[in-house]
Amino acid sequence: MAHGSGGRLTQQLIDRVMLRALGNEALAARHDAARLTPGPEVRLAFCTDSHVVSPLFFPGGDIGRLAVFGTANDLAMAGAEPRWLSAGFILEEGLPVATLERIVASIASAAAAAGVTIVAGDTKVVERGRGDGVYLTTAGVGCVHHGLVIEPRSVRAGDVVLVSGDVGRHGMAVLAQREQLAFDPPLASDCAPLWPAVSALLAAGVEVHCLRDLTRGGLATAIIEIAETAGVGVTLEEAAVPVSEPVRGACEILGLDPLYVACEGRLAAFVPGEQAAAAIQALAAAAPGGPPANVGVVQARTPGEVTLRNPIGVARVLERLSGEQLPRIC
Amino acid sequence: MAHGSGGRLTQQLIDRVMLRALGNEALAARHDAARLTPGPEVRLAFCTDSHVVSPLFFPGGDIGRLAVFGTANDLAMAGAEPRWLSAGFILEEGLPVATLERIVASIASAAAAAGVTIVAGDTKVVERGRGDGVYLTTAGVGCVHHGLVIEPRSVRAGDVVLVSGDVGRHGMAVLAQREQLAFDPPLASDCAPLWPAVSALLAAGVEVHCLRDLTRGGLATAIIEIAETAGVGVTLEEAAVPVSEPVRGACEILGLDPLYVACEGRLAAFVPGEQAAAAIQALAAAAPGGPPANVGVVQARTPGEVTLRNPIGVARVLERLSGEQLPRIC
Repeated sequence: MAHGSGGRLTQQLIDRVMLRALGNEALAARHDAARLTPGPEVRLAFCTDSHVVSPLFFPGGDIGRLAVFGTANDLAMAGAEPRWLSAGFILEEGLPVATLERIVASIASAAAAAGVTIVAGDTKVVERGRGDGVYLTTAGVGCVHHGLVIEPRSVRAGDVVLVSGDVGRHGMAVLAQREQLAFDPPLASDCAPLWPAVSALLAAGVEVHCLRDLTRGGLATAIIEIAETAGVGVTLEEAAVPVSEPVRGACEILGLDPLYVACEGRLAAFVPGEQAAAAIQALAAAAPGGPPANVGVVQARTPGEVTLRNPIGVARVLERLSGEQLPRIC
Repeated sequence: MAHGSGGRLTQQLIDRVMLRALGNEALAARHDAARLTPGPEVRLAFCTDSHVVSPLFFPGGDIGRLAVFGTANDLAMAGAEPRWLSAGFILEEGLPVATLERIVASIASAAAAAGVTIVAGDTKVVERGRGDGVYLTTAGVGCVHHGLVIEPRSVRAGDVVLVSGDVGRHGMAVLAQREQLAFDPPLASDCAPLWPAVSALLAAGVEVHCLRDLTRGGLATAIIEIAETAGVGVTLEEAAVPVSEPVRGACEILGLDPLYVACEGRLAAFVPGEQAAAAIQALAAAAPGGPPANVGVVQARTPGEVTLRNPIGVARVLERLSGEQLPRIC
């Protein structure tokens, strides 16, 4: 508890664990807020995500990597280059310092991979049993270098829906780890930075209307949310959605629908139909987990509704799940 | 748990609780990140704070008010006008929705009072017993309108240390509430926005060298941190530090030192000695909890050391406490 007190032990924790791994000019100033100098940009993006994943470590990632990529990816989904992140730790009394060090090291390497700097942070400690090891809330600021308005309301009839790679790996990997399910081959999270994929789309001159990383709730929930906010209908082709054999097999055994299982390194892109080929080409070169796929189309009729056509042409309306198939996967 | 799943119940929670109270253009876009347009400023400030205060409600505030003012104040301490905040909620399963609504309403009113907009948010739910009602992590972005570099390393020998008002109210109010201690008159938190005070200092032309809000660890810890980072010595006059009678009395009964007790609406300002009178005048007009006081002086000798002179002239070196007198007060 004393490590969260603001006293000498807090200072030691910050010096020996946080600054040693994450050290940079902004943190070295030891001030209440970091200075950012975005340069001539006048448009920024800002987002936050809290992470409560259980277990803290899983094949393909851990809570630190998840938080850094997750927040950097949310910025990328607004078309912004991820630049600066903050990290707020809520630690449970009794957490081994070695565990924290491992997470902070992972944050440092993920930040380097995603091209972001951790410029601000905070640490609190709660009593044993009042937390679950580590909860980590990251916020991020990014810079917008283009004039597009990338958001759900920019989606139009005639857009196609692209998916950057195969879906469902992250949720299944965390579930397998938590429930001690052994799959062969083992399932690993798809946790990865998505800005390179977005940057490639923009560099290719694609008029991107909307982007969404396929996290909590998976592809289905993401597309439903966008269709509702944009007031458009979407038809998805089930057979076109890439799902790896290990994920498909694990989902079948467990009775889960991969369309609702979270990814942490996949995106959906809504782009004008005539730019589908150029966009697929850009994603194929830069997105993790490819090949990308054209999985659906946007229409004006049935606004707010997402229809899934199965391989034999039967269509059904996709609904949000009432709850989650998998709790605490991010 | 289903409210944290990303499914229909999550959407209902966001629509009915969050957007109803906090609704604005950025949140209405329902996108992964908010767009910020800071205008011609090229310097921004960015900070984060996690809040685990127990109990959630206390005289003079609650976790929502604490989080909004705390983050806005951290921006102000970098000399930045607080503008945009994010809020990441970690909710414990079973938390009454009415409690959450009360906190969100408090966030909305505190944001209005501090002149900030909540533009991004996230909600996660953890199992009963894995949290403590609500943990709330806020991050903030503010705009710097001046050319000063307000940070510990700008502090110089010859600076004076000003305190904007009486210290120790917040920590004692939370402690009294948590431990069911009844004081007469009752103790209320000093939770308040500090940007008006900072703005007044800047408008008066004071060359502010460093600012620090006197939160976790209180006045003593704040000054020790700044002295160490700046590599200067500080001498504080104990008799000059404003402490209200109720706080002094409660501290005496409980054996606590008010210099180490947290405030949430007080700051220390390091300004050139020759501007002390102008700075005091500016703070007196705009800072909550005044009158402000000149409590110490910065010298080149004994770098990193803070000395406290008591009313009869006896000096002792102030140390960081190893732990905290009061856990979970923010």
